[in-house]
Amino acid sequence: MAVRDEMTAVVAEQGGRMQATHEERRRQVLDAARACFARSGFRGASMQEICAEARMSPGALYRYFPSKEAIIEAIAEDERCDAAAIVETMRGTAPLIDRLCGCAMGYFAFMRDAGASSLMAEIGAESLRNSTIGQRFARIDDHVRETIREIFEEAIARGEIPPIEDMNATIGITMAAVDGIALRQISDPELTPDRIEPVMRRLIAGVLQIRT
Amino acid sequence: MAVRDEMTAVVAEQGGRMQATHEERRRQVLDAARACFARSGFRGASMQEICAEARMSPGALYRYFPSKEAIIEAIAEDERCDAAAIVETMRGTAPLIDRLCGCAMGYFAFMRDAGASSLMAEIGAESLRNSTIGQRFARIDDHVRETIREIFEEAIARGEIPPIEDMNATIGITMAAVDGIALRQISDPELTPDRIEPVMRRLIAGVLQIRT
Repeated sequence: MAVRDEMTAVVAEQGGRMQATHEERRRQVLDAARACFARSGFRGASMQEICAEARMSPGALYRYFPSKEAIIEAIAEDERCDAAAIVETMRGTAPLIDRLCGCAMGYFAFMRDAGASSLMAEIGAESLRNSTIGQRFARIDDHVRETIREIFEEAIARGEIPPIEDMNATIGITMAAVDGIALRQISDPELTPDRIEPVMRRLIAGVLQIRT
Repeated sequence: MAVRDEMTAVVAEQGGRMQATHEERRRQVLDAARACFARSGFRGASMQEICAEARMSPGALYRYFPSKEAIIEAIAEDERCDAAAIVETMRGTAPLIDRLCGCAMGYFAFMRDAGASSLMAEIGAESLRNSTIGQRFARIDDHVRETIREIFEEAIARGEIPPIEDMNATIGITMAAVDGIALRQISDPELTPDRIEPVMRRLIAGVLQIRT
């Protein structure tokens, strides 16, 4: 009985170790793919390029992902999780303007990584092409949009902000402005967080008609 | 003498006609290239793809543009002219908010063309890659930025808006927001001009601290 337990433990540990390695290698492929997509675009990057970047043979890489589409799908899933975590920071009891501004600044910090923003620009370009890749990423957007709607509606119900005349357009334009700033901060060295923040506050206060 | 004049006129007319054809064919290549770049990206699109789109043989196409770089350069020059024309609409004697909003709406209308916005997204992606292509387009941006600065400074001097604490960040963020909206209106069917306009006014009024 003791021996059998010990054997089970050894097998489980080996399984765990193998799984760690599998997960590590999978992560390594995804990191390499992100770098390649940021550099060459989803369409421009080839599986060969990703293999070279990951220092893996095509045979090894195909054990983790059977196709470029499967890699893109996995990256979209990662992005979905990251976006969900960032929008959650909008909740809380602080004044709405502080929460919204804090969330936007958190997103800018996340996007300040050149790889993340290049990938985001590439995702934006694909969304406009109305391709399968674009549609996959559009679903992430829907989740963010719904969370913002909840937050705005709660603030209106509490009387913190006046009713919003066109909720959908207001959310869409706020998200668009935030995305635009997230991208521009990379190519514009003047747009450091301490200089973005006051202008961002004025922008949000204007859109939501918050008296400051 | 009369005969010679007539001959000169005929030769001049033929020359004019040939030039018109040359210009037309050149334009045809550029339109085809825009479509290819919007679809496949600057890096993804090949000269073969552009030839097929323009229905020209490589030999014919190379008579107009020796390389993909030369085509991109010509497109950048077109973009520069378009951007300059759009920012000029910001000048005038109407209230600043109307002029700014009118200019932004004009830009959105221009970008509503799916090809124009896909190309713009692709240009944005290249800017982040800090490539030669990106740098070429960054110069267009500088011109727009300087025109906006002039307009803002005039409005401050006239006492129409309060002094702006951080002019560069304010201009950068306004341009970033406008670019973000120009892109998102394509993938978000709710962002029609009549719904963008009121939110845009609130955004601009907030950023520039215009009492409305």
